[in-house]
Amino acid sequence: MLPKGNFPEKVFLNGTIYPSDAAQISVFDRGFLFGDGIYEVMVQLDHGIFYKKAHLDRLQENLDKINIAYDVDQLETQIAPLLHAASLEEKSCLIYMQVTRGVAPRKHAYPKGYPATTMMYALPFSLPHINSKNITAILEPDFRWHRCDIKSISLLGNVMTNEMAMSQNADEAVLVRDGLITEGSHTNIFFIKDEKVYTHPANEHILNGVTRKIVLELCRDLEIPVVEEPIAANAISSMDEAFLTGTTTQIASIAQLGEHRFHVPDAIGKTTLKLQEAFAELKQLDSSTSIV
Amino acid sequence: MLPKGNFPEKVFLNGTIYPSDAAQISVFDRGFLFGDGIYEVMVQLDHGIFYKKAHLDRLQENLDKINIAYDVDQLETQIAPLLHAASLEEKSCLIYMQVTRGVAPRKHAYPKGYPATTMMYALPFSLPHINSKNITAILEPDFRWHRCDIKSISLLGNVMTNEMAMSQNADEAVLVRDGLITEGSHTNIFFIKDEKVYTHPANEHILNGVTRKIVLELCRDLEIPVVEEPIAANAISSMDEAFLTGTTTQIASIAQLGEHRFHVPDAIGKTTLKLQEAFAELKQLDSSTSIV
Repeated sequence: MLPKGNFPEKVFLNGTIYPSDAAQISVFDRGFLFGDGIYEVMVQLDHGIFYKKAHLDRLQENLDKINIAYDVDQLETQIAPLLHAASLEEKSCLIYMQVTRGVAPRKHAYPKGYPATTMMYALPFSLPHINSKNITAILEPDFRWHRCDIKSISLLGNVMTNEMAMSQNADEAVLVRDGLITEGSHTNIFFIKDEKVYTHPANEHILNGVTRKIVLELCRDLEIPVVEEPIAANAISSMDEAFLTGTTTQIASIAQLGEHRFHVPDAIGKTTLKLQEAFAELKQLDSSTSIV
Repeated sequence: MLPKGNFPEKVFLNGTIYPSDAAQISVFDRGFLFGDGIYEVMVQLDHGIFYKKAHLDRLQENLDKINIAYDVDQLETQIAPLLHAASLEEKSCLIYMQVTRGVAPRKHAYPKGYPATTMMYALPFSLPHINSKNITAILEPDFRWHRCDIKSISLLGNVMTNEMAMSQNADEAVLVRDGLITEGSHTNIFFIKDEKVYTHPANEHILNGVTRKIVLELCRDLEIPVVEEPIAANAISSMDEAFLTGTTTQIASIAQLGEHRFHVPDAIGKTTLKLQEAFAELKQLDSSTSIV
């Protein structure tokens, strides 16, 4: 039995679609014992799954990075049956996917010859045309590992950081490593100064978000200069605008970051707004096979 | 059905003892989705569970650190029934315990009002009187998070590091952060120079092992001076001896660390041996209520 809460109706697990309360894994799954797995989140819109190929490619790349032998094409074929079973065909929804190294006796090193565990579910979920929220974010030290490029389910660092934001009634925690701003607990961050866009380079200290990559592409289309360099925490007050990106966040303006207030309340900076509008337009198109 | 492998016979899960292949958790358990939990490993010897209180106290401290509301005393009362069900009463065995933040809809921040998930199993396991292995360890960059003091199940960093050792036919990977040696992938590390013992201080960059603390106590008893300071990777070759500690490792001499060979093959350094012998004596006593 599941407790009360917004759980999906159906869960795909290792080839079978279950009612959610029957979707159970062994306690010896390495996802449960070691956080040894990769996840992905994407959304279905009116014209199909937004940047489906980009998300599935990233899932495959991440599995390859940690040597989980699994072909994501297999999971892709199961999306349509899952959406059908959950009565979410052609409906707005969020699709969560997770692949772990499978069930094996507990030992740190990778076990050989055990099949991966695959799990996926879909939940009704609608993105607003534009995310009109104007975010309040706190600044916290980035104490996570140094492979944040891996979209791993070993997420306790992100969870603790996000909890700090929630417990202070903020929307997000933005992280600072060695004086430099990296990203949010589950978002990427961008700054704007003198009509140039700044964001942390896609190295091992951030997750290279699909929405991050889309924004960089939109900047090119809109001829907004982009600098992939980290911004120092002590330079925030010299920035003109800032925004977060993420699959469910889309592009969200930041009103306050740490002690600094960017705007008069409710105002969205002009470059942020331009990117939000371009992003909203992109959602009108079929991007399911687009790469970024 | 479980695959083939050295699985326990019985698993305690949320108040019930199951045959291992029936011990299943929801895919919505935060242990599975976020690595959001704490674990503990201890061993039962002839005179009871070795430093049981020290291990259970640490489990409670770690749960408190990440605000999982659970009273470890409840789990302690279940150890005897589990050992009975597994026919391991008064037998040498390893006891693994894990507590997660429970089952809740997937959102990073801590859910409120959902009970913790508790899991525990025991496996036949005997410690040698003295660990006579002379370890080969590789050196690897410590890319884990900066809260290694938390005995979290978000272990992918440790898993990847241990796999590097295994794939190079080494016994362990010893980690280097900012030029300083921190610990192994699942062990602590000590060095000896001029009859002084050196080990990394118990701060946020290492897990403060129960065996580590026992060794520090043995050093005091044996009047061996201890310096809790990290050793630089480039100072390894100036050290006389080195050893690893851990609950299942006990005290294991290091023969080779990175490029440096400490001893003629098979020889154990004299201070390491003295500590191994003192540790073996300790195992003859009932330490189940001892603290370190």
